[in-house]
Amino acid sequence: MGGVKKIAVLGSTGSIGQQALDVIRACPEELQVVALTGGKNLQLLEKQISEFQPKMFCSSVKPDFSYGGEFLSMEEIASHPEVDFVIVATSGKAGLSPTVAALKAGKKVALASKEVLVMAGEIVVREASLHQAQIMPVDSEHSAIWQCLQGEETQPQRLFLTASGGPFRHYSQSQLSEVTPAQALHHPIWKMGKKVTIDSATLMNKGLEVIEAHWLFSFPFDSIEILIHPQSIVHSIVEFRDGSLKAQLSSPDMRLPIQYALSYPQRWPNSELPRLDWNKIHSLNFEPVDHDKFPCLKLALDAGKSGGTYPAVLCAADEVAVELFLDRIISFTDIAKIVQKTLEQHQNVVQPSLEEVLAADRWAREFAINWRPE
Amino acid sequence: MGGVKKIAVLGSTGSIGQQALDVIRACPEELQVVALTGGKNLQLLEKQISEFQPKMFCSSVKPDFSYGGEFLSMEEIASHPEVDFVIVATSGKAGLSPTVAALKAGKKVALASKEVLVMAGEIVVREASLHQAQIMPVDSEHSAIWQCLQGEETQPQRLFLTASGGPFRHYSQSQLSEVTPAQALHHPIWKMGKKVTIDSATLMNKGLEVIEAHWLFSFPFDSIEILIHPQSIVHSIVEFRDGSLKAQLSSPDMRLPIQYALSYPQRWPNSELPRLDWNKIHSLNFEPVDHDKFPCLKLALDAGKSGGTYPAVLCAADEVAVELFLDRIISFTDIAKIVQKTLEQHQNVVQPSLEEVLAADRWAREFAINWRPE
Repeated sequence: MGGVKKIAVLGSTGSIGQQALDVIRACPEELQVVALTGGKNLQLLEKQISEFQPKMFCSSVKPDFSYGGEFLSMEEIASHPEVDFVIVATSGKAGLSPTVAALKAGKKVALASKEVLVMAGEIVVREASLHQAQIMPVDSEHSAIWQCLQGEETQPQRLFLTASGGPFRHYSQSQLSEVTPAQALHHPIWKMGKKVTIDSATLMNKGLEVIEAHWLFSFPFDSIEILIHPQSIVHSIVEFRDGSLKAQLSSPDMRLPIQYALSYPQRWPNSELPRLDWNKIHSLNFEPVDHDKFPCLKLALDAGKSGGTYPAVLCAADEVAVELFLDRIISFTDIAKIVQKTLEQHQNVVQPSLEEVLAADRWAREFAINWRPE
Repeated sequence: MGGVKKIAVLGSTGSIGQQALDVIRACPEELQVVALTGGKNLQLLEKQISEFQPKMFCSSVKPDFSYGGEFLSMEEIASHPEVDFVIVATSGKAGLSPTVAALKAGKKVALASKEVLVMAGEIVVREASLHQAQIMPVDSEHSAIWQCLQGEETQPQRLFLTASGGPFRHYSQSQLSEVTPAQALHHPIWKMGKKVTIDSATLMNKGLEVIEAHWLFSFPFDSIEILIHPQSIVHSIVEFRDGSLKAQLSSPDMRLPIQYALSYPQRWPNSELPRLDWNKIHSLNFEPVDHDKFPCLKLALDAGKSGGTYPAVLCAADEVAVELFLDRIISFTDIAKIVQKTLEQHQNVVQPSLEEVLAADRWAREFAINWRPE
């Protein structure tokens, strides 16, 4: 089917990046690594480079090893003629400029970094449309929605993003205020990076996903609902206007949505991907989300609806607050307070440019790191 | 989208036929009745005719009323130039010849009568292919699979047909032998005709649906599994070769699959169709099927795999046995015994013609009505 796809993995040393490399290893006939980029984990990056021998690479610190590959910026890699497909698996805002560069070059982009669409959804969607570049979702929820929308000619009526609910969904307010980083980092289902694990515990992650879904599927906020589903087997549900719903299910394993983004519109066999065993599934459980208990979710939904630079400020303040929590400087419930205060103090810019988004991000980080709840 | 679709409803006085007319009433911009055919319930047929004023009609007894419509045979109606779309909602083998006539005339056929594909799947699929006619499934399970397959380019790996399990799934063998017609006619979820309600209680219905799925989706028997799901909200599940599954869900209401068959590839809004309320669904339950308790299921699967005229014999013997049970002549557990004996006594014909299928049907009815278990 059109030969081997040439892949750039941005953020290859992170959790999603490593799983993307697992998928590429399992599909050597279809996929070839031509570029790897890492952050500070130079040791792992060097190991990956020695295995895949990419033509290009990048890291936040220029390493002292050499192997014949070219050291380029992430933007240069993302728009390079040798690259067909860019997997954006960077953390935080790092993926934003490379994603825009890839879209301007008409590349296919498998987007695992939700900050890209949350911070700059309008810009990203516009660039994709202008340059006929395609964005493939990699988050399990968005991949589920995308899979359920295949072949459908009419706009769906409602999206239900499922949420595991995190480890604290049955905690009281006072229990929540005493949650430690170690407790919050222990996610019941998914093995993920630290930031997204804490965001899952506050449900900020689900709020970011709603904003992401809004941009990916041009879908109004009021028609996107959240359904707590602790087992994380049903990854999301789409409701159509005739009352029919489609759900996508699988064992919780990020390699599946990564592979689907790369194989689309085909599906490839991969014996390493787990199968659901219906002899072990006796029930799939659902419950409504408790908005009062998880203020980060409401903050995210409000920021998404307000638009402009608010979502970028949300992301930045949350990133700072999560780090402060992980460093034991603030409590778990302080995360929402810092994010809320930062949003309140922000002067919104409507229809911002990329520069204005990045300026809002800088302002919010500065504010959030200096402000403390009483 | 191409103007009003002109519909012939074969079996309009039955349960599915009446629900098809409900859908047509709710979609007057899209659908128009041009023909109605009924069985013995002339009173209801006359009422439907006076409402819809179809150009053509048919009934098993020629009625003494006249209104300007033409009395034609079901085959003439199914292949009539004025008809775009034939809904086959007849019971038993009555739909077989009209379906073949409709396919030969290149019509779209919404197939609610499972006997048509079970008895003569090979013939029906061949005629559809030869004349580029399309068969749209109307059974909720097959509609679910069809919906889940939209937009998928690769053959799925497994189909899971869900089954409510009927009212007796936790009965012991001795309890089963004492089941009365009144108990068996009380289906926990679906309101259906008598024959299919009894077939649901014996799980014969699910066996027939496996055979139907085999023909509709060119799918091997060994890759079609059955999953007991008492709530009948998940109507079936498709597993793809990357380990991803898609499920179709809705409130159990036959009007949805009927409407989807008629609206395909669009979906139409219909405020009369119920919506799933996730505030009321706390869990979706699944359990494996107990093949030993429900011998009719195994008989059906074996007949399907053996092919030839066996499936027609299965249908005919089951129809006779169910009537004997409803007339309190045999017990509930005798149904399987009569079907099994009839299959054992049958001389199979491989790749049968339509005439050979109908001859096998006649032979099986004759045998089944005269044989009694000890």
